[in-house]
Amino acid sequence: MSLVGRYVAVVGPADGARPTDLSHAEQVGRELAATGAVMLTGGHHGVMEAAARGARAAGGVSIGLLPGLDRAAGSPEHTYLLPTGLGELRNGLLVRAADAVVAVGCSWGTLSEIALARRTGVPLVLLDPWELPEDVGVVASDASAAVAWVSTVLRPHGH
Amino acid sequence: MSLVGRYVAVVGPADGARPTDLSHAEQVGRELAATGAVMLTGGHHGVMEAAARGARAAGGVSIGLLPGLDRAAGSPEHTYLLPTGLGELRNGLLVRAADAVVAVGCSWGTLSEIALARRTGVPLVLLDPWELPEDVGVVASDASAAVAWVSTVLRPHGH
Amino acid sequence: MSLVGRYVAVVGPADGARPTDLSHAEQVGRELAATGAVMLTGGHHGVMEAAARGARAAGGVSIGLLPGLDRAAGSPEHTYLLPTGLGELRNGLLVRAADAVVAVGCSWGTLSEIALARRTGVPLVLLDPWELPEDVGVVASDASAAVAWVSTVLRPHGH
Amino acid sequence: MSLVGRYVAVVGPADGARPTDLSHAEQVGRELAATGAVMLTGGHHGVMEAAARGARAAGGVSIGLLPGLDRAAGSPEHTYLLPTGLGELRNGLLVRAADAVVAVGCSWGTLSEIALARRTGVPLVLLDPWELPEDVGVVASDASAAVAWVSTVLRPHGH
Repeated sequence: MSLVGRYVAVVGPADGARPTDLSHAEQVGRELAATGAVMLTGGHHGVMEAAARGARAAGGVSIGLLPGLDRAAGSPEHTYLLPTGLGELRNGLLVRAADAVVAVGCSWGTLSEIALARRTGVPLVLLDPWELPEDVGVVASDASAAVAWVSTVLRPHGH
Repeated sequence: MSLVGRYVAVVGPADGARPTDLSHAEQVGRELAATGAVMLTGGHHGVMEAAARGARAAGGVSIGLLPGLDRAAGSPEHTYLLPTGLGELRNGLLVRAADAVVAVGCSWGTLSEIALARRTGVPLVLLDPWELPEDVGVVASDASAAVAWVSTVLRPHGH
Repeated sequence: MSLVGRYVAVVGPADGARPTDLSHAEQVGRELAATGAVMLTGGHHGVMEAAARGARAAGGVSIGLLPGLDRAAGSPEHTYLLPTGLGELRNGLLVRAADAVVAVGCSWGTLSEIALARRTGVPLVLLDPWELPEDVGVVASDASAAVAWVSTVLRPHGH
Repeated sequence: MSLVGRYVAVVGPADGARPTDLSHAEQVGRELAATGAVMLTGGHHGVMEAAARGARAAGGVSIGLLPGLDRAAGSPEHTYLLPTGLGELRNGLLVRAADAVVAVGCSWGTLSEIALARRTGVPLVLLDPWELPEDVGVVASDASAAVAWVSTVLRPHGH
């Protein structure tokens, strides 16, 4: 089952990422790439970089949408880096450009992306989120479960 | 004590606003206007409209930053309405343009604004929020307490 | 004849404004304010500041949409100043939020606003533009003619 | 001589593209791809599609930044398509994300991109532009000359 041409955002903290967040993100990136998904991130270090590293290891592609104007500020693990100059408004751009969102860990920036995904109806799965209202969405038990959930959601109807 | 020239965003749900949210928002709008603050909102109905009505009743000014392209979609309680066409990215614009944020009630859109305020360091006070991580910030007991907190935060140093 | 509630953007150079641009802008601001229009500008000095000064002198209101994050970078001649943090993308926001655009003089930034107004169909009148393709729109002979043209365009049908 | 990792925006009309614009764009896309550049476009038909087709033919990559919210509205000649929902503000995003801009033909939308490139200092080369102020920049005689100019500009210092 392939997700060729599907775009999945992996979001999560830069500075505050925990070791488990990083290993989760790398595995999510690797397994998403194996499905043929194009991965989108915020382009920075922490969870974003770990996910990009995973995608790269599996031969996949990641596009980082940076908040600032300097491409060199992005993590070189990404295949492509686009400076948006939108500051934190790039969080909304990232959610908007994605067919599904995987949130790994949490931070205030990540929470803004989770909230915007819920607000705009982009399918969302979470790994180790903060304590949030129960209906925040699907909380996956591990990276493989998160990717499996995304695959189900993005599977074309009737296949 | 005046807040002349200070910009305060009042954010909260449109459709999902509860009666207490609306009465809180109207009182916040009225009391903020009395301090001389310029109120910013998302320009729509619900909490935004109630806050604009309060500001208007107190002779104050509100500027609504609409997500869409149609000025006529905004609530006419606002003094000024600016269509941004940014969709949900206008949530980030609203927080960015404000010197402080008052969140009345909650919704996923409101939560994105709360999270962006925390992410970018804009002073934030909440009335009847969802259950959120403890360090989300100051939760006020009523509308007057929220406005009093804003006044303290925005008071020029040494005054 | 009143334009109450209508929003008119006055655009033009900051640094490169000529003395005639500044006097034109101030007169446009004064005469627009007299019609009851709300004036929008990019919030900076030069043509923007002169237009805001004119509006203020006539008892009118101007809202400056700043490219950066610092409200203090705006010209204090404006009634309200909103930092957008969008950089040059605020040029598009300015055109989008306006019911009509008056371009006074020209610069590359101003040309981007002229082009976006043409692209998106916002009524446009120019004073002393660069040499541009003939169909750029109405070129007014002086400030009063520019404001008169705006008044005609924004006049509600049937009045 | 390689431009690996360099991002070049190819801009030009969708509906109003002339046959020579399309053939120029396709050749620019093909030759840029051969240098290893990553091509950015507005994601639509006309010049954008022709450039993407050229890049694809040469084994290169193109990323289309769409103005709307619907990925399916983009031209499938692109390798990747990102819906931005920014409307015409995506013109500014496109220029901002690029290390150089090639403008093929002209339209009001294209002119906004030309003007923003000049305003923000992004290197710009034009093919068959409208009559514009003389200092608009380098006008290339053909597609190969445009790509050669870009290669020179993006060549790392000292190489």
